[in-house]
Amino acid sequence: MQTKEVLVILTDHWADWEAAYAMAGLNSAPDYVVKTIAIDKQPKISIGGMKAEIDYTISDYKNLGNTAMLVLPGGFSWADSDYPEIAAFVGMARTKGIPVAAICGATIYLAKHGFLDNIRHTGDTFDYFEGLQGYNGKDNYVLAQVVNYDGFITANETAAVEFAREIFLMLKMDTEENIREWYDNFKNGMA
Amino acid sequence: MQTKEVLVILTDHWADWEAAYAMAGLNSAPDYVVKTIAIDKQPKISIGGMKAEIDYTISDYKNLGNTAMLVLPGGFSWADSDYPEIAAFVGMARTKGIPVAAICGATIYLAKHGFLDNIRHTGDTFDYFEGLQGYNGKDNYVLAQVVNYDGFITANETAAVEFAREIFLMLKMDTEENIREWYDNFKNGMA
Repeated sequence: MQTKEVLVILTDHWADWEAAYAMAGLNSAPDYVVKTIAIDKQPKISIGGMKAEIDYTISDYKNLGNTAMLVLPGGFSWADSDYPEIAAFVGMARTKGIPVAAICGATIYLAKHGFLDNIRHTGDTFDYFEGLQGYNGKDNYVLAQVVNYDGFITANETAAVEFAREIFLMLKMDTEENIREWYDNFKNGMA
Repeated sequence: MQTKEVLVILTDHWADWEAAYAMAGLNSAPDYVVKTIAIDKQPKISIGGMKAEIDYTISDYKNLGNTAMLVLPGGFSWADSDYPEIAAFVGMARTKGIPVAAICGATIYLAKHGFLDNIRHTGDTFDYFEGLQGYNGKDNYVLAQVVNYDGFITANETAAVEFAREIFLMLKMDTEENIREWYDNFKNGMA
């Protein structure tokens, strides 16, 4: 199988931990390589002060024929920024059947742009969504660590390990048994 | 209180998730700022493919008067590399009473360089240490998620959240109650 790219969309003040398990797992797997992509080539600084270089800009990335998934870590700038280029890129990916995984603030961003548009807005302030970023794909947000529905994986900020597990399962990165063993190890510890 | 620096020592193929919670927490706290440091200024690429820029080189960082802690994420290059500059830097920090937090492969590296030198080597192959990177500071490695002893915090690769908790407690980043609540949230989830 050809190596396919997993694109991690970085924004200002991206959350260090949220996509970290997923990135390390996928980039270690023979079938996938992880690349960072952003609206420009300026390094994107994480909440933790990590200055990440950017592999691709969205405007230059026209061909998604070799793209396995888009991953959107959360961060402090999703709430304040409209990022029209990112919304258009997510839309193009979904049109081509490419799955999109978003966590924390990025989930809220997707909802705001109508990608999770079956939502019944029962209380759509930022605070309300903060702890409710799993999405059941039907009529509202659900209180869940992670939800996998209709091409989207969504998770809350405490669910980095669950988020990685769902991504690994969706991309068949390994056998289901091995992925579940990995999850048990990293969720519950080895001690 | 003056803002003090927490230095994260990055090496080739650093493990994305291991120091991520700790970095994000500390860099968000008013008393601390997180900086990356390495043996040279070349960006250091993580296991997950993240290319991190380096704020300082070890050879240029002579004054530790404003340094709160050294943090050593694990990664794939600790086992193969001797990194004498890093060992000397850790030694200088400990001489000045600055705590050192290491996780996964970085714990093994510290042991190899004699920093955890009360160890009774009951089986000192790499495989043996792999799951046993807590250190009880007395006579051998212990099977623990995290150990805090004698100025060193050590943890195994599945213990990124516990590692952050011990770092936050040691640096009094917040009240103990708030830190334990943070830990419960991120260890057990909010759903």
